[in-house]
Amino acid sequence: MEFINGVKQKEDISVSQLLTGDYTGKTVKMRGAVHNVRDMGEVVFVILRKSEGLVQCVYEDTAASGPAKISGMAEASAPGSAAGDAGAAEHSDKVRLRLSDIKSLKEESAVEVTGQVVAEERAPFGYELRLSGIEILSEPDEILPLAINKFKMHTSLEAKLAMRPISLRNIRERAKFKIQEGIVRGFRDFLMSQGFTEVHTPKIVSRGAEGGSNVFKLDYFNKKAEMGQSPQFYKQTMVGVYDRVFEVAPVFRAEKHNTTRHLNEYVSLDFEMGYIDGFEEIMAMETGFLQYTMALLAKDYQKELNMLEVKLPDVSRIPAVRFDKAKELVAEKYNRRIRNPFDLEPEEELLIGRYFEEEYGSDFVFVTHYPSKKRPFYAMDDPEDARFTLSFDLLFRGLEVTTGGQRIHDYQEILKKMEKRGMDPADIESYLMIFKYGMPPHGGLGIGLERLTMRLLGEQNVRETSLFPRDVTRLEP
Amino acid sequence: MEFINGVKQKEDISVSQLLTGDYTGKTVKMRGAVHNVRDMGEVVFVILRKSEGLVQCVYEDTAASGPAKISGMAEASAPGSAAGDAGAAEHSDKVRLRLSDIKSLKEESAVEVTGQVVAEERAPFGYELRLSGIEILSEPDEILPLAINKFKMHTSLEAKLAMRPISLRNIRERAKFKIQEGIVRGFRDFLMSQGFTEVHTPKIVSRGAEGGSNVFKLDYFNKKAEMGQSPQFYKQTMVGVYDRVFEVAPVFRAEKHNTTRHLNEYVSLDFEMGYIDGFEEIMAMETGFLQYTMALLAKDYQKELNMLEVKLPDVSRIPAVRFDKAKELVAEKYNRRIRNPFDLEPEEELLIGRYFEEEYGSDFVFVTHYPSKKRPFYAMDDPEDARFTLSFDLLFRGLEVTTGGQRIHDYQEILKKMEKRGMDPADIESYLMIFKYGMPPHGGLGIGLERLTMRLLGEQNVRETSLFPRDVTRLEP
Repeated sequence: MEFINGVKQKEDISVSQLLTGDYTGKTVKMRGAVHNVRDMGEVVFVILRKSEGLVQCVYEDTAASGPAKISGMAEASAPGSAAGDAGAAEHSDKVRLRLSDIKSLKEESAVEVTGQVVAEERAPFGYELRLSGIEILSEPDEILPLAINKFKMHTSLEAKLAMRPISLRNIRERAKFKIQEGIVRGFRDFLMSQGFTEVHTPKIVSRGAEGGSNVFKLDYFNKKAEMGQSPQFYKQTMVGVYDRVFEVAPVFRAEKHNTTRHLNEYVSLDFEMGYIDGFEEIMAMETGFLQYTMALLAKDYQKELNMLEVKLPDVSRIPAVRFDKAKELVAEKYNRRIRNPFDLEPEEELLIGRYFEEEYGSDFVFVTHYPSKKRPFYAMDDPEDARFTLSFDLLFRGLEVTTGGQRIHDYQEILKKMEKRGMDPADIESYLMIFKYGMPPHGGLGIGLERLTMRLLGEQNVRETSLFPRDVTRLEP
Repeated sequence: MEFINGVKQKEDISVSQLLTGDYTGKTVKMRGAVHNVRDMGEVVFVILRKSEGLVQCVYEDTAASGPAKISGMAEASAPGSAAGDAGAAEHSDKVRLRLSDIKSLKEESAVEVTGQVVAEERAPFGYELRLSGIEILSEPDEILPLAINKFKMHTSLEAKLAMRPISLRNIRERAKFKIQEGIVRGFRDFLMSQGFTEVHTPKIVSRGAEGGSNVFKLDYFNKKAEMGQSPQFYKQTMVGVYDRVFEVAPVFRAEKHNTTRHLNEYVSLDFEMGYIDGFEEIMAMETGFLQYTMALLAKDYQKELNMLEVKLPDVSRIPAVRFDKAKELVAEKYNRRIRNPFDLEPEEELLIGRYFEEEYGSDFVFVTHYPSKKRPFYAMDDPEDARFTLSFDLLFRGLEVTTGGQRIHDYQEILKKMEKRGMDPADIESYLMIFKYGMPPHGGLGIGLERLTMRLLGEQNVRETSLFPRDVTRLEP
């Protein structure tokens, strides 16, 4: 009987191994995509693209460098193999590596190179490989229609998105989503350290009270269903179970806005926490998340931050200002008339961001006490003035990246608020159950991952920071 | 200007703090839900439910124990407050804690208790709190209709699911999902250690080649769309970008099966890896994940494992057997006739599981080389016998918990296979793009999180290990 015992070390090495091991002067194997072939005449540079970055390989056609080999694909059945250099002699199907073979390497081929590690400060990572062999693992059928191996692809967003499966191979494009990975890691790791439990709640939901024109409708075995706009009801429910919970999952919004900041499907970073003394604790938790995450990015994602020239924002303290006060401040400083005291226009959001950047040097600002009319029924009204709620948005360089607040936890109170809004409790009975049988004071927030990434990277369109964006006109790739 | 500086230590303490700090003899505050009130006459036990477990609090009505206090809610405006015991004197709105007050505490109230920490080996965690004060933070409106505070709820699955938002508060119920959290943590942490990148791919997809009757259809701004059955195309695409990727996300299957092992929405643990030498590497990576995860569960989730009496399986090695061979083995040992050599019946799966348990003491078995007919078009056929594929399922105690395998990476080869199946390349052009422009040899797998959890915990129905299961008849809670 054959048994599988776990992961075995492969013969080829990663960039981390190259950097942490003692390989100088030794012959190693590395696998990756042929990112670029630079033909300098007698010297050819082959740039290997690996997940961790680019590796410079060089082939010189001199007697001194010894004969190198190429194998695989078309050459697999070539005669005269198994000869020469000891460094790669274990592959019996190899033939002599010629300059012409290397020059004819197709970009985007998957290869295994064999070469000697030499310190070279001008190369990425400080090392290059002096090639003695190349094995072709697979070859493309056609030549790339766009220059993904340029450091900056001077291509329109439309063109990049149409070719997304390929354009993401550009090292700057993929660096964005590596940083996005870091944000999600930071969110999870920080919340776990704070006693939160991770949950997975359903995305197909029955038509509920939050529904409306902005939901995607679904036929669920002849029942009316919709795609969840938010895990709101479920995460509150789970506070009754674990006190503090979080979820990282897609949410779906059928909004017809086709703007630079809207997506119809996005990743929402949600948390909800019980036993709070006020909604300030939620803002404090978010600030803690940002502090932890910026430190994590600085530690583990510096390569990508440098590549994209990202300067991490200072999040040691974040100003908090009331909604009505914020409107006054920008009206005064920027000579604006307040048209509607209970609404915030996108331009006002931008100006609030600008105000706090100019006055306090902060990229972030919490805007608190949003008007009740603008918040869902479950938001807790401010006991001191019921026209406002114990809620907040977090603006990052003038863009809302978070909505959060304290929720009603008392059964009678939520029933009253629903009645005032003409809502029927029977529609959301299983949600209301949690209040009927007891819920601690609680609150939470939702962060739009793509928007947070967009602002952090200084991108102008949220589609730049979604792997495969969904908008009103885009369902593919 | 007000600033938010990050997370502040709260006055009340967690169970971890209680266990790691030096609190014996000291008076502390703890917050939680009133899980149970046990009235023993002159002594009353109040069991506090916190996310980490139950905390025993005790109140004795003797002069020796000193006067205790109760406050909050109805008592908030009571006269005669601010007297007595120094331990809780900072709350000026408190009144004397009387035996009758404690006896009338409603279960599922959210409270803050004040009490002295005393070592007590019969109490959970080895400590109890001698109560001197209770502050009620919120109260339920009605008494619970089911006894969630019993260790085992002797309730039908149907009843538990109907009351899911509440029944999950039972400590055994919630322990299941804590273990599930551990599995997901293990998956992510292990793969990150192996150089994988986490990705987030869209769940609303255009109607593609994998579609059929088993998909949930959606109207996407007057375009035909469906909910993703699997991140298959996207994770393969991302191998071209990061070499190794994983995703933890919901998948949607409109299957009409209403069985104990099917869900219409579940969490899929997916990974995909490039530059493989064979599909055995994928099985090795999954074995590595299981080894890492079982060790993680033993380290961080022992309390939950003990509560549910779970014995972790031995995953030091997992047998692998060919599909056709496995059929023969069980036919021989259990006197079964092979009806269809190219299909595996659920009963056969169970018998294969039993065979490898009996013969090799293994709870897991990889069944390899599934027939091509049973695998999707992108599966790589075995070059030695094209009727079979380089693919596998992982069975856990006779249930399929994983499907995986090597994929075709050559453009012409995938076109040929599609043609043979009568598929139109134009339908999935953006997926085929990755092969046209070059893909390394690669493969991967998808693991059903709820099924893996179900088998690990010895549950008989997959609904037991889904927080809010979706099946043909269930769309709520």
